[in-house]
Amino acid sequence: MTPKTSNVDTLRWRDGALQLLDQRVLPHTIEYIVCRSAADVADAITAMVVRGAPAIGIAAAYGVVLAAGDAFERHGERWRDAIRDDIERLRRSRPTAVNLAFELDAIVRRFAAIEGDPGPELLAYANALKARDVTDNERMGAFGAAHIAPGSRVLTHCNAGALATAGYGTALGVIRSAWRAANVSRVYATETRPWFQGARLTAWELHQDGIPVTLIADSAAAHLMRSGGVDWVITGADRIAANGDVANKIGTYSLAVNARAHDVRFMVAAPLSTIDRDTAEGSRIPIEERDPDELRSFRGHAIAPAGVDAFNPVFDVTPAAFIDVLVTEKGALTKPDAAAIATLFERR
Amino acid sequence: MTPKTSNVDTLRWRDGALQLLDQRVLPHTIEYIVCRSAADVADAITAMVVRGAPAIGIAAAYGVVLAAGDAFERHGERWRDAIRDDIERLRRSRPTAVNLAFELDAIVRRFAAIEGDPGPELLAYANALKARDVTDNERMGAFGAAHIAPGSRVLTHCNAGALATAGYGTALGVIRSAWRAANVSRVYATETRPWFQGARLTAWELHQDGIPVTLIADSAAAHLMRSGGVDWVITGADRIAANGDVANKIGTYSLAVNARAHDVRFMVAAPLSTIDRDTAEGSRIPIEERDPDELRSFRGHAIAPAGVDAFNPVFDVTPAAFIDVLVTEKGALTKPDAAAIATLFERR
Repeated sequence: MTPKTSNVDTLRWRDGALQLLDQRVLPHTIEYIVCRSAADVADAITAMVVRGAPAIGIAAAYGVVLAAGDAFERHGERWRDAIRDDIERLRRSRPTAVNLAFELDAIVRRFAAIEGDPGPELLAYANALKARDVTDNERMGAFGAAHIAPGSRVLTHCNAGALATAGYGTALGVIRSAWRAANVSRVYATETRPWFQGARLTAWELHQDGIPVTLIADSAAAHLMRSGGVDWVITGADRIAANGDVANKIGTYSLAVNARAHDVRFMVAAPLSTIDRDTAEGSRIPIEERDPDELRSFRGHAIAPAGVDAFNPVFDVTPAAFIDVLVTEKGALTKPDAAAIATLFERR
Repeated sequence: MTPKTSNVDTLRWRDGALQLLDQRVLPHTIEYIVCRSAADVADAITAMVVRGAPAIGIAAAYGVVLAAGDAFERHGERWRDAIRDDIERLRRSRPTAVNLAFELDAIVRRFAAIEGDPGPELLAYANALKARDVTDNERMGAFGAAHIAPGSRVLTHCNAGALATAGYGTALGVIRSAWRAANVSRVYATETRPWFQGARLTAWELHQDGIPVTLIADSAAAHLMRSGGVDWVITGADRIAANGDVANKIGTYSLAVNARAHDVRFMVAAPLSTIDRDTAEGSRIPIEERDPDELRSFRGHAIAPAGVDAFNPVFDVTPAAFIDVLVTEKGALTKPDAAAIATLFERR
């Protein structure tokens, strides 16, 4: 029997360690991986124990808590120098999502003001970050849901839900809020190869919430759009360039092209920490390529013939021109561009 | 070690029975399923032991050989009436590919002229059909390859290769011929969910032939096109309407939309038996929906949560307007339409 999502945290602090819900074995097994060092956290991010741009940013902040506590014990006031390698290791654990670097930079900026043991203060900071992520997602949910007309059929890709964040979700937050307002009649979840985040995580989240969800193959989305079955595509983002170009899970761009071709609207929901103001446009976003064996085999079963070449980019870039609505915790933009995006950072 | 494709027949007649290469366990296991009755053949087609529009048409012809031989033994001259149910069962074994109905109708038209035991004459007919399929594919290969410029990068979907036919392949026949002419530098094979025909069959065929092949997730094709990595998309077809609309493996339509958006050309290769002159346009082609468990689990491993809804259409329709070149054994058409397609049936 599939476990319930209720009371399952994506990540939690327990007994001086970070516990990460192991998303590789969901939904059939609920198991936490215990991280006692920054290296443990970095490895867990690389291995996709925890995934989703906001969630890995928060996990990295807890990684710094672990590193700083340990360094203060060993090196006293020299802890700031002692954890530099740890921070770089966290930063490099996955290249595309910018939230990782954003949260690391934000936490490092607090170092100067800390006196004595940094552990308690940094832990309080990470806990606040986690709590704020949930309220930001609820805010995004309301902003996004305001655009969804009653009875809408929504297609989402990968998992931008509670499991990709500290709770509620970005794209799934919008879908949850729109569902509560009776504006969503059905959600289509693409299975999302090669990691099946849609089949394993999104379908699980929505099914447990009682939101009508139908699983489809990634390649069935265009057929569904052509037959008039989809009103909105709503996704999260791993990095948004200053001009509004969106890097997200591989396949997002194909959905955007098809949405435009079929008069289906396209919404992206992401916190401001996903917007990389230092990256002018999408072509400059590094696209992570992962092990080709993620395509060649599944849970130890070979699929493709041994030795065959495979190309496994796990993100793609959707140009801003394809995005009808960009939702952040500071509000929603229709037809986002560089100027409009810049104004988000002025809002209180 | 993965076995070699050489000397592996998709289907073969041995000792009074039809042997079908079990495509569900390729490429890691070479195993033949022995069919001794029309019902065995129909079940094997439904279960996807044999797949690919031309291959199932030929398999069905052998199914009639089995049915007729048995019926003559039991009922003598009344064999024609006795096999009606068998023929209908074969016809219904898969709904989308029209080759099945085409070959059944063609073989039934020969019944009137047969005297005495129909077995030997129908077997000779099925054997000739199988042999002609290979020469037709070689002819298509030459017609299609003439359109491919040197150094082209080709993307193909599903498997329209030797394994989908009696040999050489339709789309893969064009790719093989173009490769021999040094006009193909690389082939991208989409893995093709949910059955992984691209990963298991196409990658295997091309890898064994020494043709450079790279496996990608279905959803990575648009990203690859946007980065300028693809010159042609070449696929087979399961049914082509009289106006040139093409039903083919789910995901073909998405590739066609993306090809058009990225100035990538789109070719379909299929024998005349795939053209259904009785179906005016694609919207009238029945689209097979298969068991949702094909999406919910893989080889007995659950992927999605138990009980979640899934929609599993296994074909889609690509309007003729998206097709740059249609290749048949009677020649190639650029920008195919109803009038041009009709002329193919006049050619000798």
